[in-house]
Amino acid sequence: MNNKKQNILIIGAGLCGSLLALRLGQRGYNVNVYEMRPDLRKTDISAGRSINLALSDRGFKAMKLTNIEDKVKELCIPMNGRMLHDKEGNTFLSNYSGRDHEYINSVSRGELNGLLLTEAEKHENVTIHFNKECKSVDFENTTALFRDFNTKDEFVEDADCIIATDGAGSALRNSYYLGKKFLFSFSQDYLNHGYKELSFLPTEDGGYKTYKNALHIWPRRSFMLIALPNLDGSFTVTLFLSYDEGEYNFNNLTTPEIVTEFFEKEFPDALALMPNLVDDFFTNPTSSLGTVKCSPWHYKGNTLLMGDSAHAIVPFYGQGMNAAFEDVVEFDNILDQNLESWEATFKAYEKGRKKDTDAIADLAIDNFHEMKDHVANPIFQEKRKIEMALEKEFPNDYSSKYSLVTFNETISYREAMLRGRAQDKAILNMLADGIISVDDDLNTILEKVKNETEAILEDDRIAGLS
Amino acid sequence: MNNKKQNILIIGAGLCGSLLALRLGQRGYNVNVYEMRPDLRKTDISAGRSINLALSDRGFKAMKLTNIEDKVKELCIPMNGRMLHDKEGNTFLSNYSGRDHEYINSVSRGELNGLLLTEAEKHENVTIHFNKECKSVDFENTTALFRDFNTKDEFVEDADCIIATDGAGSALRNSYYLGKKFLFSFSQDYLNHGYKELSFLPTEDGGYKTYKNALHIWPRRSFMLIALPNLDGSFTVTLFLSYDEGEYNFNNLTTPEIVTEFFEKEFPDALALMPNLVDDFFTNPTSSLGTVKCSPWHYKGNTLLMGDSAHAIVPFYGQGMNAAFEDVVEFDNILDQNLESWEATFKAYEKGRKKDTDAIADLAIDNFHEMKDHVANPIFQEKRKIEMALEKEFPNDYSSKYSLVTFNETISYREAMLRGRAQDKAILNMLADGIISVDDDLNTILEKVKNETEAILEDDRIAGLS
Repeated sequence: MNNKKQNILIIGAGLCGSLLALRLGQRGYNVNVYEMRPDLRKTDISAGRSINLALSDRGFKAMKLTNIEDKVKELCIPMNGRMLHDKEGNTFLSNYSGRDHEYINSVSRGELNGLLLTEAEKHENVTIHFNKECKSVDFENTTALFRDFNTKDEFVEDADCIIATDGAGSALRNSYYLGKKFLFSFSQDYLNHGYKELSFLPTEDGGYKTYKNALHIWPRRSFMLIALPNLDGSFTVTLFLSYDEGEYNFNNLTTPEIVTEFFEKEFPDALALMPNLVDDFFTNPTSSLGTVKCSPWHYKGNTLLMGDSAHAIVPFYGQGMNAAFEDVVEFDNILDQNLESWEATFKAYEKGRKKDTDAIADLAIDNFHEMKDHVANPIFQEKRKIEMALEKEFPNDYSSKYSLVTFNETISYREAMLRGRAQDKAILNMLADGIISVDDDLNTILEKVKNETEAILEDDRIAGLS
Repeated sequence: MNNKKQNILIIGAGLCGSLLALRLGQRGYNVNVYEMRPDLRKTDISAGRSINLALSDRGFKAMKLTNIEDKVKELCIPMNGRMLHDKEGNTFLSNYSGRDHEYINSVSRGELNGLLLTEAEKHENVTIHFNKECKSVDFENTTALFRDFNTKDEFVEDADCIIATDGAGSALRNSYYLGKKFLFSFSQDYLNHGYKELSFLPTEDGGYKTYKNALHIWPRRSFMLIALPNLDGSFTVTLFLSYDEGEYNFNNLTTPEIVTEFFEKEFPDALALMPNLVDDFFTNPTSSLGTVKCSPWHYKGNTLLMGDSAHAIVPFYGQGMNAAFEDVVEFDNILDQNLESWEATFKAYEKGRKKDTDAIADLAIDNFHEMKDHVANPIFQEKRKIEMALEKEFPNDYSSKYSLVTFNETISYREAMLRGRAQDKAILNMLADGIISVDDDLNTILEKVKNETEAILEDDRIAGLS
């Protein structure tokens, strides 16, 4: 496998697959990528609608590794914090961190994917084949069956190894599951909430209708609306709502009148910015929110799952793309070890990586509850206030759970989860018990939080809970 | 649905299905049960080998409900505790509870299933059809496709509702998954350990070769052997071992010499009782250990999963059968509410029950680690000692996690899990911190344990963790 003439077949040229192709191309492998969709640089796939994502420090690690950081930054809009909107239209800006240089970036999925494809194709040892849908993978023989979208012909390709970056509905993962050739642990977990994409269009002169450098949130306990800025002055707006619970839900929002009534009641300031609401609502699909975990990711040295195909997560930490990009960085680190075989490489990669992708999946579920519910809860607001002050006062000594996950790319997701959850528990309980309060001296608070966090982690260790 | 002439089709006449048929028969419904295997009362299915199970208080609730408690007791061998065996052959008996009337029962799966079938068939409104394998279920039309084992003919049956009690490999659950007609959350999680059944044969005069009234355990950290008594003087012995890790594992135990060497080294006192080891080892299959969770269990009012088909668990709490039997009790409670439709009935049943079957699944994984590892760990042994003393001294005021799960059938699995885990954490940490010790006054220990347990539960509540 250290022979650079090895042929690697990648299934899927989305964000993870095109980045992986770029990196493996840089390393000198012969790379063939098969993508089911047409080339998104030449086709207006989403009819002008740009789904956007939050790119943060773990994702940027991969941009640095592949030397495209500067080009990517041109596609980014910094979001310094969450702007909360209450029902009366009052807003409150809550920074993501007490450190000014820590922010997340709104980026268009299509633009970023296009850049990665272009960079990958600059390597003559990388070839991307569009309109070729993978139907199944014969993982025992390291071959994949494809269907050409235009000719409808089916054909089989082989390779020295196959890496599937074909997303949450992965054909390789499905072949693992249906094949029953080995014990395959697998889970798909759906939330009872779905989501629908809406939009704020730009002003007539191409400006932004609301504050540009924030991730806007309208938290309403059992549902919420969010908005992220796009380069063209528009915002991509997403409604997260139960399918069937509560007074309003996706199952009963069936007429323009009810949809408008719902927005008038719950999101009046947002409604004022979206004359296009009803059109968007009934044109765009309602999509599900699911978490996928599985193991093993690899079959011997033949095949490997990476990115969403191995670990699809809900979007509430803004880490799905970042986790997939970090996969490529971690895989690259394992390749640097020059292990004796693809099997050893895949095994070492999964062993090191899976605990972290499990952690970010669980953290994303945590944040689903935090975003829609806790941000409007007094004790959680006090905690946030204290943590912002600690981060500002002690930039090198304190990071909130959100900062640990989002801005501390040198520690793993699992470490961020364990420490972050313990810190949250420490602060919330000390607030509830009157041991600390928002007006206390920050040095005292920091010391108490650190000690209590360590005590919580130690208690869990003794009880065998972590 | 309150019309007793409703036709109910049950898929699977195992322990859960035959009990459900009995109970629904008692309630007056028209019940047809389809079972893929032949009638186990007439066929020697397992070639003389009786897999046995531990029946405890939650299971007995269902025996009482159906008025067959006395008949079932005749099939039971009480096991008062765990008998631990170390490598030198020393034994240590650790009771399951400090209360003498609390014990579990070894019972033969085949005998118990046979009894349930016979009791169910006493009702003329219950018919059991053997050798009819369910291939799939059309849950939208409430029909099931069967294949006759003898004639190989396929046929379709319909009913007012279909309840699948067809175990971990459920055909209905598979139809839910493959149908993709609704969001179906599903997980299958395998341990890296498998198991193999072995045996101690009776003595020549039909007696027991080792102590009868215990569940014997040979804990060896990363693997273990257990033995349960049978009525005929034999013991069913089970080896739990990794497939591929450690010096000895299922993948490398490939010759009679290596198997014997492994037992000589690790289980010499057991080996002395099993001249039949090599035969058993190479005749019996190695089976996997998996947990299945899913949701929803029902499709409208048409179909419902119950027992292992809805929630298969690993065997380490001895609660798989008990949980399935408790399902029937809980379902019966919902039927007593006379809700307006099967859909309302199924929905109420799942809403009340799923949190508890999720809990016992997680508890069973906990106990996997406790049985093979913690029982040989000094601080866990001290905890056990303290808990036994507390249960003996304060029979109405203290129950260990094991007792809460196994003998406190009036509290739910979830409540038992939350309280039991908090108690364990409290005792282990107070032991580690020197706040309590095994020689302290029991009144003082009880008070400290109760207070600390409450504090732990309260801390978790404040942090939103439970």
